[in-house]
Amino acid sequence: MSLTYALAQSIITDALAAGQQHGFKPLTVVVLDAGGHVIAAARQDGASNNRFEIAQGKAYGALALGMGSRAIMERAEQQAYFIAAATATLGGRLIPVPGGVLIRDSDGIIQGAVGISGDSSDNDETAASTAIEASGLTAQVD
Amino acid sequence: MSLTYALAQSIITDALAAGQQHGFKPLTVVVLDAGGHVIAAARQDGASNNRFEIAQGKAYGALALGMGSRAIMERAEQQAYFIAAATATLGGRLIPVPGGVLIRDSDGIIQGAVGISGDSSDNDETAASTAIEASGLTAQVD
Amino acid sequence: MSLTYALAQSIITDALAAGQQHGFKPLTVVVLDAGGHVIAAARQDGASNNRFEIAQGKAYGALALGMGSRAIMERAEQQAYFIAAATATLGGRLIPVPGGVLIRDSDGIIQGAVGISGDSSDNDETAASTAIEASGLTAQVD
Amino acid sequence: MSLTYALAQSIITDALAAGQQHGFKPLTVVVLDAGGHVIAAARQDGASNNRFEIAQGKAYGALALGMGSRAIMERAEQQAYFIAAATATLGGRLIPVPGGVLIRDSDGIIQGAVGISGDSSDNDETAASTAIEASGLTAQVD
Repeated sequence: MSLTYALAQSIITDALAAGQQHGFKPLTVVVLDAGGHVIAAARQDGASNNRFEIAQGKAYGALALGMGSRAIMERAEQQAYFIAAATATLGGRLIPVPGGVLIRDSDGIIQGAVGISGDSSDNDETAASTAIEASGLTAQVD
Repeated sequence: MSLTYALAQSIITDALAAGQQHGFKPLTVVVLDAGGHVIAAARQDGASNNRFEIAQGKAYGALALGMGSRAIMERAEQQAYFIAAATATLGGRLIPVPGGVLIRDSDGIIQGAVGISGDSSDNDETAASTAIEASGLTAQVD
Repeated sequence: MSLTYALAQSIITDALAAGQQHGFKPLTVVVLDAGGHVIAAARQDGASNNRFEIAQGKAYGALALGMGSRAIMERAEQQAYFIAAATATLGGRLIPVPGGVLIRDSDGIIQGAVGISGDSSDNDETAASTAIEASGLTAQVD
Repeated sequence: MSLTYALAQSIITDALAAGQQHGFKPLTVVVLDAGGHVIAAARQDGASNNRFEIAQGKAYGALALGMGSRAIMERAEQQAYFIAAATATLGGRLIPVPGGVLIRDSDGIIQGAVGISGDSSDNDETAASTAIEASGLTAQVD
């Protein structure tokens, strides 16, 4: 199962529904393909200007380093200078807090990533994981 | 009428429908708010890696200079060095070919812009204008 | 009430007057619209070379994340690596200390932001808030 | 006579008055000191998002190369690749069309530059030169 535009759009719909169900603040959701390129994005009314870039950075960084952005945060807690340098190396496209979740198919192959920003990082991650799993794919948060 | 996420998503749906109706190649559609920030984006299956950035640059440049990207192309035909410099000034977020269309409301106020990339520039522009007008807003291509 | 150039210029005048009244060091004041674009700026005699960029970064970051730069500082105190990464993501346009203040109108809509740099961060913020409130708008510092 | 903030603000006022007198479109005016750093800026209502950056680039480039932006345009007409490379070297802060005017004092010393964008490049330059001369300084357009 590859990550089509239809599936990416379905993930966005599910993520926004999860946010509404939990009473989260307005969310911004970005879905990237395995190469880190945008497939679909949505910024809800009331989300601040650059939430797209923050959400994108969570997802892009996850794909860049092959781990969910929660694991990248843990590395930042240990070696902030490494993550700072990696962020610079990637032109800023790495945001080291939860909410960037890898998408794996039933064979374990990475198909892309979802990045969400808007509420607490933990809640952003919950919305992302819920939406990925609702689509029959596997979410990797760390 | 302000450019909500719901309206941006509706513009994307209409643009993709226009593309399908005319038999266009896979399209990538980006909708920006008046400040040039992403509200919604969609890249259809088969579109190449960086079509998001191309579509975004058409729309961002239109907002940056206050004219549709067709007018920016005309300026590039006359003074290529000016548009090259402006592109550098804007960090690359200016693509001077048709397909970046300003969105005005009934009072003439700019509410945002749509950028489309994937088929010929003229066809990209057609899809953008069709979708904007279908939403009851006014499209400005130059 | 939208943030016109006349109103932005009035905010600058009021901010400089507040600085003079309190005996602050030379201030630099930048007023951005809701999309983060410069409306007006003033750097007083004696302010160092790049105070414009510092003041701009306070205001731009506030709009980017939807909170005053005091709240961004608090986040930096907790997770310095997150703010460092967000700064890189925004191309450097985020300065996480007080003095970047959101401007809301009577309906609570964000109309822009003021960034001030030159004296202590707390004093910079005082000048910004005083000027915004003097114009009949609401200042949000965190 | 050095270029104080008060004088920079006076130049802006005079430039906007010249624009109004001639019926120019909304102008954006940026005044830089001799080091290329912002002293004051104004973007009139109706000017598009990134006119500040365009006006800044005209003035910064003039100071960078020691000639008005009209002369830089003439160089671009002859060797577009040189100006393209110089623009990249300066991080985009060079716009090679008229409207970037050097400010010299009575001893011929460069005190700064004015950049204007919004109407035709020739008209932008007229507003800049008129304002500089009105302040008792000398304008150098090429």
